Amino acid sequence: MTLLDGKKILTEIREELSIKVQQYIAQGHRAPCLVAVLVGNDGASQTYVSSKEKNSASCGYQSRILRFDESMSEEELLNEIEKLNQDDTVDGFIVQSPLPSHISAQRIFDAIDPNKDVDGFNTINTGKLTKGMDCFVPATPLGIIELLKRYQIETSGKHCVVIGRSDIVGRPMSILLSLPKAGGNATVTLCHSRTQNLKQFTLQADIVVAALGKPEFLTGDMVKEGAIVIDVGITRIDDPSKKSGFRLSGDVKFDEVAIKCSYITPVPGGVGLMTIASLLQNTMKAYELKLGNNSKKN
Amino acid sequence: MTLLDGKKILTEIREELSIKVQQYIAQGHRAPCLVAVLVGNDGASQTYVSSKEKNSASCGYQSRILRFDESMSEEELLNEIEKLNQDDTVDGFIVQSPLPSHISAQRIFDAIDPNKDVDGFNTINTGKLTKGMDCFVPATPLGIIELLKRYQIETSGKHCVVIGRSDIVGRPMSILLSLPKAGGNATVTLCHSRTQNLKQFTLQADIVVAALGKPEFLTGDMVKEGAIVIDVGITRIDDPSKKSGFRLSGDVKFDEVAIKCSYITPVPGGVGLMTIASLLQNTMKAYELKLGNNSKKN
Repeated sequence: MTLLDGKKILTEIREELSIKVQQYIAQGHRAPCLVAVLVGNDGASQTYVSSKEKNSASCGYQSRILRFDESMSEEELLNEIEKLNQDDTVDGFIVQSPLPSHISAQRIFDAIDPNKDVDGFNTINTGKLTKGMDCFVPATPLGIIELLKRYQIETSGKHCVVIGRSDIVGRPMSILLSLPKAGGNATVTLCHSRTQNLKQFTLQADIVVAALGKPEFLTGDMVKEGAIVIDVGITRIDDPSKKSGFRLSGDVKFDEVAIKCSYITPVPGGVGLMTIASLLQNTMKAYELKLGNNSKKN
Repeated sequence: MTLLDGKKILTEIREELSIKVQQYIAQGHRAPCLVAVLVGNDGASQTYVSSKEKNSASCGYQSRILRFDESMSEEELLNEIEKLNQDDTVDGFIVQSPLPSHISAQRIFDAIDPNKDVDGFNTINTGKLTKGMDCFVPATPLGIIELLKRYQIETSGKHCVVIGRSDIVGRPMSILLSLPKAGGNATVTLCHSRTQNLKQFTLQADIVVAALGKPEFLTGDMVKEGAIVIDVGITRIDDPSKKSGFRLSGDVKFDEVAIKCSYITPVPGGVGLMTIASLLQNTMKAYELKLGNNSKKN
């Protein structure tokens, strides 16, 4: 069994991006700039956003967090987004979920300039992804494709079973894996809460992507010998023995599944870090897109 | 075995829409209006477009065909589309595929006002479809969902195998069947040219949708007893014994498969006619959308 090491790949990607940033700066350009918008005080969101900022800084990006009170209205947030759309010094930005219930997340995502939408949640990017066009792909499924690629795991002709049909992971994952391009070409089965006899499907899978958000859901008896298992779950479980008061649990019962697998992602240290890596790559993509557009203008 | 009778359902839907049109006209509104744009002289395209026009007229729609020479430039076609977008007397329009090779179909589809995009090929509609939002759904997959609904065939919890990953049929079909809504909630496996051991998948399917465009590809040994088989294929095969010089063949070897099925669509008389039915429904949707928007303005 080989561990798919998100930490190692994130480090590699950060180094690659750092070199690019240095080259661009040497050519007289400014550094790429990523902005994160945070509304309210959700603990996990604070952690994610800080981690994104820290990682951005570590590859030489400019990075900042815009914090707003959770009483902010939808219109006020839309105004802030419009400012970021217009701001030429901002290459990409994200609006951290979850948003307060009085704000429509989809309306917010659709207000983001599709060329700055480094989370890939704008409907236009979703449409392009579905058609296999070049676009900003949501960071988690993109990170999984990248992880498989870096470990030279072929997806073409494989049977992939994706558990979970969320807009941000399961659904785009199922599409990416089946697109007629590198990193795709798999036969994909999308399973979810209405699936009957789920085990019958997972047992057939060459690659299982567990993205349902139920701690330790995927057990050893549900995967075939030699399977590749990708654990997207990252749930906080109360744990008084930890300083933070919680531990992180994946959707996979690691000890049982790992002994049957050829490859598996750990939690933490797997998909979560690849999500950050993809966000950094998407920001570089947005930066280079703008650089290309500006040089065309000149 | 029950035949899923597209002709019967198309007739039902036309009658329902006719009644609606009469009611709207009685209220002082104009009839819905569908325009088809045809570039070049492709024989099959001429047939499809004429059939769409005839069916539109039969439920009281205004309908017209705009014909252009195949030497038309992309820019000229974009200008025509902009005119149709601006024309308040046009509720919906389609640009018949295939287009001449010097014109980018996707650029054309993306130029269509998403609210008049009754074929559902605009990237915004694709994105909305993928997210499960209200939108214009491509007519063929929409017609299949409608056909299953009218025959009270439950999809929730069923295993559906879709063969073919085209943007206009297989891909949106696979998404629709797995969305968390009525007509969806199925476990869906999307198979395609890179799928290995296809038969292993189709043999497990409660519902098979064959949309690969290979005549008589799906044979009796590939489906399980009692399966529901939807045949999307419609290929012209030379046949000198026919007045037209050709016959239409589906993707399913009908005689072999029909005896094992619980339900099956014939070709012709199945999915092809449901595609027309959905186009008529989408046109009514576009009409009512505009009516609602205008009454909001007043």
